[in-house]
Amino acid sequence: MADKLAMVVFSGTADRLFPVGVLTSGAVAMGMDVEIFLTFWGLQAFSKKAQGAPPKFSTDYADMAPMFAQVLKEKNVPSPVETLRKAKELGNVKVYACTMTMDLLGQKKEDFIDLVDATAGVGEFMDKARDANVTLFI
Amino acid sequence: MADKLAMVVFSGTADRLFPVGVLTSGAVAMGMDVEIFLTFWGLQAFSKKAQGAPPKFSTDYADMAPMFAQVLKEKNVPSPVETLRKAKELGNVKVYACTMTMDLLGQKKEDFIDLVDATAGVGEFMDKARDANVTLFI
Amino acid sequence: MADKLAMVVFSGTADRLFPVGVLTSGAVAMGMDVEIFLTFWGLQAFSKKAQGAPPKFSTDYADMAPMFAQVLKEKNVPSPVETLRKAKELGNVKVYACTMTMDLLGQKKEDFIDLVDATAGVGEFMDKARDANVTLFI
Repeated sequence: MADKLAMVVFSGTADRLFPVGVLTSGAVAMGMDVEIFLTFWGLQAFSKKAQGAPPKFSTDYADMAPMFAQVLKEKNVPSPVETLRKAKELGNVKVYACTMTMDLLGQKKEDFIDLVDATAGVGEFMDKARDANVTLFI
Repeated sequence: MADKLAMVVFSGTADRLFPVGVLTSGAVAMGMDVEIFLTFWGLQAFSKKAQGAPPKFSTDYADMAPMFAQVLKEKNVPSPVETLRKAKELGNVKVYACTMTMDLLGQKKEDFIDLVDATAGVGEFMDKARDANVTLFI
Repeated sequence: MADKLAMVVFSGTADRLFPVGVLTSGAVAMGMDVEIFLTFWGLQAFSKKAQGAPPKFSTDYADMAPMFAQVLKEKNVPSPVETLRKAKELGNVKVYACTMTMDLLGQKKEDFIDLVDATAGVGEFMDKARDANVTLFI
């Protein structure tokens, strides 16, 4: 069985979503499986409605955000969604939408982009995460 | 020995405390033990003084917060404290208050709600976390 | 082989950097190795340029921040950098700068304080983290 990275993605700001893509890429490059549980604000960032919206950085770094945003644009840095898509082509990456968040907000699987493989309850995800080598809450 | 989820709860905003309760519930449902280390802002949310205060969401999601707050109210979603209380009835959940934070702020164990089982130093908690299957910083 | 704590340090606010130092100290006290991957805003906090700047707390806790800042000053609480320096004297602590962030911002290893041992790609760090006992994203 391959080593595994399991991430709970709770945050929805552009800067916090970058590491989700990058850590996934890094794990795949090392031959690891990746399982991602999208919840709360993190899940909303993967709704169809949210695509194409201008990236919103954490207010804590408002002073550095414009500089970072410009660099990302100038260097054509792929978006977290693009990075995840690429990682899925190269490795074993599964993305789950949190059923509790969906129930609360009256959302259905079709409301999210096709990067999302399936829905999962938090217990189900915990069961997948328990044998992961690296577990992170982002 | 049961599998274990160990969480360092540093954050104190309402939205970041929800996953603390929900992940604990999910882990207990899967037969896992849970150990929670409350520190900094996260510890303050469990002070007796903080109970009953209106939930404060992260400023990063100020645009979505009113919608979320209304949904939580309409659907009678239990608070993180209520969810943790329930999880403690059903499983093996231990909640520790960080002694360093308490020392800094001149706080005593009695300043916190009875959900807090004991105080612990960060080394002690690290010792409990080292054999956990899932470790998260929230 | 010693037990290990591996942390991805993404955040750069003063309050979120404190646990980086304190968790490292705690892990070292318990005989654990520590590996720290500085990225994004977290890496910027370890630039030479950032040293000596007044600590900036998360905006989410703006109401409690002045009180906390005063306590830290009154009690001469060592800064995260000082705590990490001390922990490095006592144990096996390695600090890596994220090459992707450095490339994006045109930074070199010399732009960071000497606490930073080396640069590393995210894949390299994932490879170090895969056998860690405790993994955290801060």
